[in-house]
Amino acid sequence: MFNQLGVIGCGLMGGSFALALKRAGLVKRVVGYSKSPSTTEKARRLGVIDTAAESALLAVSGSDLVLLAVPVAATEATLKAIRHLVEPGVMLMDVGSTKRDVVDAARRVLKDKVGCFVPAHPITGKEVSGIENADAYLYANRQVILTPLAQTDAALVQKATDVWAAIGCQVLKMSPENHDAAFAAVSHLPHLLAFAYFASVAKQPAGRDFLSLAGPGFRDFTRIAASDPVMWRDVLMSNREEILKQSQRFRHTLDALEHVMKLGNSEALEDLIRNASEMRAGWQMSSPKPGGSR
Amino acid sequence: MFNQLGVIGCGLMGGSFALALKRAGLVKRVVGYSKSPSTTEKARRLGVIDTAAESALLAVSGSDLVLLAVPVAATEATLKAIRHLVEPGVMLMDVGSTKRDVVDAARRVLKDKVGCFVPAHPITGKEVSGIENADAYLYANRQVILTPLAQTDAALVQKATDVWAAIGCQVLKMSPENHDAAFAAVSHLPHLLAFAYFASVAKQPAGRDFLSLAGPGFRDFTRIAASDPVMWRDVLMSNREEILKQSQRFRHTLDALEHVMKLGNSEALEDLIRNASEMRAGWQMSSPKPGGSR
Repeated sequence: MFNQLGVIGCGLMGGSFALALKRAGLVKRVVGYSKSPSTTEKARRLGVIDTAAESALLAVSGSDLVLLAVPVAATEATLKAIRHLVEPGVMLMDVGSTKRDVVDAARRVLKDKVGCFVPAHPITGKEVSGIENADAYLYANRQVILTPLAQTDAALVQKATDVWAAIGCQVLKMSPENHDAAFAAVSHLPHLLAFAYFASVAKQPAGRDFLSLAGPGFRDFTRIAASDPVMWRDVLMSNREEILKQSQRFRHTLDALEHVMKLGNSEALEDLIRNASEMRAGWQMSSPKPGGSR
Repeated sequence: MFNQLGVIGCGLMGGSFALALKRAGLVKRVVGYSKSPSTTEKARRLGVIDTAAESALLAVSGSDLVLLAVPVAATEATLKAIRHLVEPGVMLMDVGSTKRDVVDAARRVLKDKVGCFVPAHPITGKEVSGIENADAYLYANRQVILTPLAQTDAALVQKATDVWAAIGCQVLKMSPENHDAAFAAVSHLPHLLAFAYFASVAKQPAGRDFLSLAGPGFRDFTRIAASDPVMWRDVLMSNREEILKQSQRFRHTLDALEHVMKLGNSEALEDLIRNASEMRAGWQMSSPKPGGSR
């Protein structure tokens, strides 16, 4: 049980974490801060936070648990704003989709206090963002990746594990480097491809007519193209090295498919498709409670 | 009301059409044929068809409505097998995802009987195939595109419109050429990209580990990569000219995104993403009954 959760960044992720902790009875009080005062006020009005803080530092004051839920490129500036109040007894976590840059920023800014920081990436999201979409069940039946540093307090890593497990997450640990390589492949590249694909259809002369004909396959394939621009700008920029590597792999596979199409080699095309199709049919999203995905 | 529906190809599309017509009380009897006798037998056992025919020709015998629901590359051979029984009084339709090749095959094979043929493409599907997944509601709240020829009997076009409308479809008409250009963009290319993307992740050395970390965004983005290999081999091959054109457009847009990532131009990247994101957020799948999608 925490006395006070400080949420910095009252959006979908931060707001949902506050609601999930309240629902699980894990926190007495939630203080929130967002760069935009109207967002902080909306979070308070919606009951997601109890008290609006006027600065990031004030959201840390008196909190024994602090969640950074800002776009990853804002991590360093936010850590600078709060570092004076980060001290033993405070557990600091983030929810960023990239981890190398976040961990580097934490090392640079927090220095000898970096042991308080448990870097976290919950594998969840929605194609809608903002505090109005906060959801107490956003983290239920999902995975969360912790990427602790060598200096991270082992007791805090256990405490973080317990908190995420209590709101329904399966907790995994890996290095920031492995995390970023894996998520470039299974999350960041698909977002890049979805943005590129949707834009390429929409901006062509007959785009509007074409879009009126699109069906359920298109709908699901492009769902993530509606994701938050600021968050994804930061993710694509910060992990670009790994993402560009994955994009090269993808282009090679696409080249191979197009090559057999151009040759008119139906048999080879069927083999390539069958291979992908069978593997995808056999894949299932990991979930701590099988069949319990929402 | 039809006396007898002949379904050639007892798979997801053909089976669902039979179930939908039965449910709407539009047909007295359904005769079915599949290349594999065990499939035809399964369709009969499941009650999707009433009688198993031993050949495509026998499925046409006595039918006043015939649905061709075979992979598009099998259209020409199937039409040859049945043409002797295609005569005035029989309405022949297909459900192929491409239309230029189907219409060309019909012209070549049916010659002066081509007026009986109403080419159709219902915009629906599942990532699972086969008669065991047939669903009386597969066509409900979906669009169907008819691409009649100049020689198609106008009364049959009206009759086809009525049948599809009766099972819940919004009926649109367009030329085979416009159809194929549009569906290259909104359906065929996404399938190609999904096959390529899933294969490129799965086949890399750490692919198995990466796949175990993938979340809901990945799940939806790759759903169509599990589609039927034979059906999609034919679609990609038959409409490859338009699909390759669309792929070029997509690659240009992807190049532009990667270019600003490489330059480190966050602002330009955000603009490109925001553009796609806002357009996608404003897009909704067309549906005859808004909000009624299944």
